[in-house]
Amino acid sequence: MTEAYYSQKIHGPFETQALGDFDLVSGEKIRDLEIAYATFGTLSPSRDNAVLFPSWYSGSSKILELGYVGPGRALDPEKYFIILVNQIGAGLSSSPSSTRAPFGAARFPEVEIADDVRAQYRLVTEIFGIERLALVLGGSMGAQQTYEWAVRFPEAVRRAAPIAGLARGTPHNRLLVQTFIDAIVSDPAFEEGWYERASRVHRGLRRHAHLFAASGFSPALYNTRGFAELGFTTTDDFVTGFVENHFLPQDPNNLLLLLRKWRDADVSRNADGDLSAALGRIRADTTVIAIDEDGFFPLADIEAEQKLIPNSRLRRVSSPWGHLALFGADGAYNAAIDRHLAELLAA
Amino acid sequence: MTEAYYSQKIHGPFETQALGDFDLVSGEKIRDLEIAYATFGTLSPSRDNAVLFPSWYSGSSKILELGYVGPGRALDPEKYFIILVNQIGAGLSSSPSSTRAPFGAARFPEVEIADDVRAQYRLVTEIFGIERLALVLGGSMGAQQTYEWAVRFPEAVRRAAPIAGLARGTPHNRLLVQTFIDAIVSDPAFEEGWYERASRVHRGLRRHAHLFAASGFSPALYNTRGFAELGFTTTDDFVTGFVENHFLPQDPNNLLLLLRKWRDADVSRNADGDLSAALGRIRADTTVIAIDEDGFFPLADIEAEQKLIPNSRLRRVSSPWGHLALFGADGAYNAAIDRHLAELLAA
Repeated sequence: MTEAYYSQKIHGPFETQALGDFDLVSGEKIRDLEIAYATFGTLSPSRDNAVLFPSWYSGSSKILELGYVGPGRALDPEKYFIILVNQIGAGLSSSPSSTRAPFGAARFPEVEIADDVRAQYRLVTEIFGIERLALVLGGSMGAQQTYEWAVRFPEAVRRAAPIAGLARGTPHNRLLVQTFIDAIVSDPAFEEGWYERASRVHRGLRRHAHLFAASGFSPALYNTRGFAELGFTTTDDFVTGFVENHFLPQDPNNLLLLLRKWRDADVSRNADGDLSAALGRIRADTTVIAIDEDGFFPLADIEAEQKLIPNSRLRRVSSPWGHLALFGADGAYNAAIDRHLAELLAA
Repeated sequence: MTEAYYSQKIHGPFETQALGDFDLVSGEKIRDLEIAYATFGTLSPSRDNAVLFPSWYSGSSKILELGYVGPGRALDPEKYFIILVNQIGAGLSSSPSSTRAPFGAARFPEVEIADDVRAQYRLVTEIFGIERLALVLGGSMGAQQTYEWAVRFPEAVRRAAPIAGLARGTPHNRLLVQTFIDAIVSDPAFEEGWYERASRVHRGLRRHAHLFAASGFSPALYNTRGFAELGFTTTDDFVTGFVENHFLPQDPNNLLLLLRKWRDADVSRNADGDLSAALGRIRADTTVIAIDEDGFFPLADIEAEQKLIPNSRLRRVSSPWGHLALFGADGAYNAAIDRHLAELLAA
């Protein structure tokens, strides 16, 4: 099931770039790191029209394409060379599920957001020869990567648009993410990551999906049956058909690697723990986007960080889909995001 | 541990009233039902100064006393005869944990909010000879009981103050409560309710406590360390010292009975499923109180019900403690509640 899920058939077409042995921030290494990505449009001769869009938790480049890229959209392949890049550990790039013994599964090393960004930097500079990105953007864990890009490589990011995410996790966000982790690892079938098949851990994955469902959307989505637009009938039908259906084919070790990466994200590590100093390094023209109903990354926390970024502005979007409006199921959200991105790209 | 917890030493002094075999709405029965309660103040000769305050999820009459009753408070024993009553299944009134085999533990019958209210009605009318209560109030599951009182016995409730709760659970609230249930029953040590000792289920109880912690308080409580006022240092210290410490001594079957009662509460059963008709029966002067930051019972849902109640008004309270401001740890919340209750009682 996992094999078939992390495939070109479901998530492709995507390319894979080998980056050799890759030293992680922690001091460990990933052997023969591969980064999976998809591109749209054409790189201009002056290499100044590239957009980098890293994936969020449990998503791939495919959902970014479906939700954000296309003719007439802000991310228009007629104008931009758009690189949708898959996180390490998410199944398409090197991951616990795709790495042979003894290096894979529960033994796959811990990865930080900074490791993804360092690998992406090599892809962008060494493979595509791009010195400066016209835009780096991303939602949720994609926002974490966007912040890390803008802080770590300030000269390489002309514009930044972190959406529904934080540069440094708050205590509440860490507590919430830990409940997602615990839902999976508490399943006896998880066996400390040494399960025989991912589908054996379905009870833990279901509980994880239910927690995600209860906090990822706004209560109004359920109470006004906003999911009926997508053809779902009852709460159960939606939770099973949309949320469980998204998570059940995925690999528990992959999800846990991503959750720990999410939980521990913190750009202030670039400045000895000083968040203000780290965000003060950003040179990008930055539009920070928050979703009013976001239960994962509340507006107040996003706004507090935005105020620490020199050349930045806050844009608010409202959606009953809450944090998971990111998925692109809400047309009004998509239109609002396009407006804010177009405004930033025109600057 | 459970034995020692559900005791006079910790929750007393309280009285116990035997009500004999008690037929439940479901058709099942509780043998020798006992209702535990505490009273403060003196019933007036005309029996018109009685206030009934049922307990919320996992709480007892003791916390209601500590948080809401006292000289100078709206619920002043100098003026009112205050009855704090413990829910069936919460450990002090008849409960899975206190009922002998074969009737107790996992075999204890399902109980509805309506059953509590019917038992309380007998206590109030038969034991105290009170025909009409000056006020019925309660928070969370106490609000569910308050609504049931006002709908089921409209002539017996002069005033009502449901706080941070709903007359009928929303789809989102039911989804959320189900995650609390699943956190406990998924612990292999739960053994379908036939655990040897409650403390064996501590892993499930801890996960349940963490879910409660993540959604019961506002994110701001963690992110601004609002818990420092109570002497807690870190998020972990607070979650362990406050939230786990509250739940770990309790009995899993008791908590699950309460959670199912909470999940399924619905006053519209009094009117063939018509919520508007049910709430339209209320004769009480009603002050509905919502907490702006409430993640369990959002303002919008509370307001929608309030508009269906004839002689009612909405009062909003703000607290970083979110839903669990109910516990009384926030002085500003306590003062605001007292103002709203005093206003209602003066009417």
